Amino acid sequence: MGLNASQKIIKNHLVKGKMIVGEEIAIKIDRTLTQDSTGTMAYLQFEALGINRVKTKKSVAYIDHNILQSGPENADDHLYIQTVAKKHGIYFSRPGNGICHQVNLERFGVPGDTLLGSDSHTPTGGGIGMLAIGAGGLDVAVAMGGGEYYINMPKIVKVNLRGKLSPWVTAKDIILEMLRRCTVKGGVGKIFEYVGEGVKTLSVPERATITNMGAELGATTSIFPSDDTVRDFLKAQGREKDFSYVQPDADAVYDEEMEINLSTLGPMVACPHSPDKVVPVSQLKDVKVNQVCIGSCTNSSFVDMMKVAHILKGKTVNENVSLTISPGSKQVLNMIAQNGGLASMVGSGARILESACGPCIGMGQSPSTDAVSLRTFNRNFEGRSGTRSAKIYLVSPEIAAASAIKGYIADPRELGEPIYIEMPDEFLVEDNMIAPPDKTGDNIKVVRGPNIKPFPKAKSCENITCGKVLTKVGDNITTDHIMPSNAKLLPYRSNIPHLAEYCLTPCDEDFPKKAKENGGGIIVAGSNYGQGSSREHAALAPLYLGVKAVLAKSFARIHRANLINNGIIPLVFENEDDYDKIDVMDELVIEDTLKQIKNDVVTVKNKNRNEEYKMVFNVTDRQRDMIKFGGLLNMMKENNK
Amino acid sequence: MGLNASQKIIKNHLVKGKMIVGEEIAIKIDRTLTQDSTGTMAYLQFEALGINRVKTKKSVAYIDHNILQSGPENADDHLYIQTVAKKHGIYFSRPGNGICHQVNLERFGVPGDTLLGSDSHTPTGGGIGMLAIGAGGLDVAVAMGGGEYYINMPKIVKVNLRGKLSPWVTAKDIILEMLRRCTVKGGVGKIFEYVGEGVKTLSVPERATITNMGAELGATTSIFPSDDTVRDFLKAQGREKDFSYVQPDADAVYDEEMEINLSTLGPMVACPHSPDKVVPVSQLKDVKVNQVCIGSCTNSSFVDMMKVAHILKGKTVNENVSLTISPGSKQVLNMIAQNGGLASMVGSGARILESACGPCIGMGQSPSTDAVSLRTFNRNFEGRSGTRSAKIYLVSPEIAAASAIKGYIADPRELGEPIYIEMPDEFLVEDNMIAPPDKTGDNIKVVRGPNIKPFPKAKSCENITCGKVLTKVGDNITTDHIMPSNAKLLPYRSNIPHLAEYCLTPCDEDFPKKAKENGGGIIVAGSNYGQGSSREHAALAPLYLGVKAVLAKSFARIHRANLINNGIIPLVFENEDDYDKIDVMDELVIEDTLKQIKNDVVTVKNKNRNEEYKMVFNVTDRQRDMIKFGGLLNMMKENNK
Repeated sequence: MGLNASQKIIKNHLVKGKMIVGEEIAIKIDRTLTQDSTGTMAYLQFEALGINRVKTKKSVAYIDHNILQSGPENADDHLYIQTVAKKHGIYFSRPGNGICHQVNLERFGVPGDTLLGSDSHTPTGGGIGMLAIGAGGLDVAVAMGGGEYYINMPKIVKVNLRGKLSPWVTAKDIILEMLRRCTVKGGVGKIFEYVGEGVKTLSVPERATITNMGAELGATTSIFPSDDTVRDFLKAQGREKDFSYVQPDADAVYDEEMEINLSTLGPMVACPHSPDKVVPVSQLKDVKVNQVCIGSCTNSSFVDMMKVAHILKGKTVNENVSLTISPGSKQVLNMIAQNGGLASMVGSGARILESACGPCIGMGQSPSTDAVSLRTFNRNFEGRSGTRSAKIYLVSPEIAAASAIKGYIADPRELGEPIYIEMPDEFLVEDNMIAPPDKTGDNIKVVRGPNIKPFPKAKSCENITCGKVLTKVGDNITTDHIMPSNAKLLPYRSNIPHLAEYCLTPCDEDFPKKAKENGGGIIVAGSNYGQGSSREHAALAPLYLGVKAVLAKSFARIHRANLINNGIIPLVFENEDDYDKIDVMDELVIEDTLKQIKNDVVTVKNKNRNEEYKMVFNVTDRQRDMIKFGGLLNMMKENNK
Repeated sequence: MGLNASQKIIKNHLVKGKMIVGEEIAIKIDRTLTQDSTGTMAYLQFEALGINRVKTKKSVAYIDHNILQSGPENADDHLYIQTVAKKHGIYFSRPGNGICHQVNLERFGVPGDTLLGSDSHTPTGGGIGMLAIGAGGLDVAVAMGGGEYYINMPKIVKVNLRGKLSPWVTAKDIILEMLRRCTVKGGVGKIFEYVGEGVKTLSVPERATITNMGAELGATTSIFPSDDTVRDFLKAQGREKDFSYVQPDADAVYDEEMEINLSTLGPMVACPHSPDKVVPVSQLKDVKVNQVCIGSCTNSSFVDMMKVAHILKGKTVNENVSLTISPGSKQVLNMIAQNGGLASMVGSGARILESACGPCIGMGQSPSTDAVSLRTFNRNFEGRSGTRSAKIYLVSPEIAAASAIKGYIADPRELGEPIYIEMPDEFLVEDNMIAPPDKTGDNIKVVRGPNIKPFPKAKSCENITCGKVLTKVGDNITTDHIMPSNAKLLPYRSNIPHLAEYCLTPCDEDFPKKAKENGGGIIVAGSNYGQGSSREHAALAPLYLGVKAVLAKSFARIHRANLINNGIIPLVFENEDDYDKIDVMDELVIEDTLKQIKNDVVTVKNKNRNEEYKMVFNVTDRQRDMIKFGGLLNMMKENNK
């Protein structure tokens, strides 16, 4: 029986377990990436492991999130990451060098290798046939130290792409179609593997747009085969030596199958406030637009930029629109600066921002109150733009550029003849903004600014876990809700005491206060709790506030792992109706916790109502140990005793 | 007896008074400019005047300060300014179009005209022979409404430039030499008029660098003649029709004279934390540098950028340095995007920021804790960078670029053969980011975001003015101390209640608290109180907090005017020793205030010490009226009764 591409890579990296769906496996991690908003914490955790040099093939620390620097905190974090990287054998991609996922494709990614990144859009690497997975910073720290990565064997979903895209229809529309069909919960526990004749029609950046936004499906990752298109891309990057074919066997078997006929797709838009609220662009015609933002790890490649440049050339951005463009990397920016593309953008009145995440993470360019903002990004969660009342729509670069000129949401097909941009035979390769690590690191002093505070450490599990229900939230709560991330808070990613003051406040303004007054407690949530970004801070801040358990209808994968890594018990309602029975400030108790956490079902008692709830605790033995010892770091210390 | 250039322009615009040094004159204002950090307030004040359309030849509203947009406040302010401008006959320079002073030179400035701007670096316009003066927003609002501008006739200082600059020595070094000789107080009550053979050797952008930083001398303004160099510049901007000669008569008389032999100057640096702490670059060799920032209204012209591009071409920014470059305008950015200059910068690893003030006003790019930051800007006040402990040095673009590569403060003469960049025969003119006003404005609705709060209104003067000394500060207190301006506070420039919480806190953390607890009071200060930026908020926030008078050894011109405009009494110690006699929390009283403010000397009693101090109140009759009625707006209402 043949293997699919995902299985082939997993098999090559399997350290523990069997490739049976749902069973825990451990895989060897070849490469890691961090960015600066999760990276500071990841390196603090790496230091706590006491390992001198990283044991991966290559680990890279990128600076792409906190680039506004409205105070010394960001630059201090950058200096910490730069020096800690130099000391411990990690490559450092300097501020201005670009967005981690774009630079990874260009300069570091290797087909067939595994990549673990402390950023939820790490699956972008699947565009060149990597098995690229987003994780919490602690998992990445452990991987840097040579530790395997634990995961339940995902279902592998075959996505058969038929036909080819019509003019003005793009890769963004393919992934929006996936989101329309599957929703933001549809990918949980799955890897989407794209195959079929349609694959050949898609360039590497197009594939990467799709694997990138696979994160929005909740998927473990997404992957395209490594084929001649990938070879040509790596060759054009001067990296043909990194190429190898990674393709499914002819008789490969998949756990699920679906099909998209590319020829039938039209331009689409994800409406506020969820990436799966997808409608055809025609349904939104004449919606007035106040802001358009082009860029982000989803759509900032050279080809994306050149399409935009062609649409903007000789035109003027509508008087009522502010258009921002963030090229994905120094390579992209340099190429469009050389070939005139950038001049066309500037000429039209576009505001050119740094090659970084920028407005996608609310790092500047917050729109005006109640504004309509069109963005080529991957997330449109409420408030993520920095403007609570803004309405964010996710679109292709073509829709974005057309709408910036028109002043309303425009169908790019109105622009007439389609634009075809050739993939370059040779990219402009100049790695001078990537600082290699020191050979030994012995003489490198790690610089720690005053904003870098020790992270909270979990304690081993007590036998009676009890606490009041501090808050009760609904479905699809994102990590943006749990630990808001915006231009004002991102500088404090290495300062949990400060961050904790904002924990869950978008849902419940008094949450931090209630947590402190009650000496911690328990969170009750709906389904898909913790979707979105991989940020571990969504577990660290509750840990700091004394949260002991989260009871939810279901969890997003990375967040659940982050909770367990930090010793917080994630429990799933066996009977979802029990959710309705619990009120805020009810006192819950898990008796005999140490015994109960060995089981798949845990009983939670509600002392106020004299009720009991059966909660599913379907985790691995290793995860049970983590809860017992109080998180991953404590468990590793126990195991090393 | 012949006239100098300054006198000629003043004479042409004189509405009231005589051109006798120190006597009050009123001049007609041809043009105004605002930027967005002072502009919001200026337009609120303009609206309060109840005038439908501006009465100037041309008024322009620029957006260049608050461009990070870390929340809806900035975009809301921009939208307010855009709509209020459209309604009332004001041109709107959109975000991304560039720094007001650079764009004014390129597209709007007219030799021989008067320009009043709500930005202290408005004198940049003197580079093309304008009489360009910085003022508070209220003065600009009044000028937009057709009102004259009142000022005491300044001394005109002849600055005779001899010889020509040596290779690698720049216009920045000329103005640093001026600052070294005259200090930040040396220009108070003066206009510096540059003449002599050396003038011919300087291009318009070089002249503008000098007139720009004349603000740091405390000067009313600085001016170069309008000569063939200016004609060629305007012709290259497609504006030859705006040109006229403005030159001193051969027998012109000046109030003071000084001379600089350009040939003897070397590259210089202003050290932390004052623009007049000037030393030769050689004294600072080998000082390690963490950050280099190039741009600002002082040094962001096309020629500045091209020099930097040539130095950076094929090089790499030192691993320990973060280099940012902010081109001065869309025109500059577009030209260097077209000619490859920008690609050289990007290739070297420079971080390209928007065409705006950026790091110069602490709007991002705050350096790391204790960092050394070299900047081509005009101010290096403590904390202005957003990093309190940072050490900011002011330098030419050449020193900046050389140091960015070397990693330490470098003498550009080490770079070898000098670079000569020709001034373009034709600039790239494309005014599509300048929105003209509506023809009548009748149907334009002004959009006011929730952050736009009513500004505080002064009350008419009471006959007994008394209050406790709330704080006592030293010499050279800047408006950055009085009303801190950084990335966190700039978004609140239209929200005085919020800003007031930070008033004078860099000098005295408890000042706002003390002011509130005591129902307002009095400030005691050393010499040159209120130097620096023109921001009226340094008067509005004290007004909001109930400050009734400021007793100082001396005042900076614009700030004193702003205090009077807002009904706060500025008094100068007749005997500076009295400053030492007063303590914080002493209760001071001005008896018979209404009578006393008619005199040049006012008696202030110290109730705690049973002492009396003679305070000089050397203001014009009009200003006495303003104090009596409670500020300019109230006086205008009285006069219109």
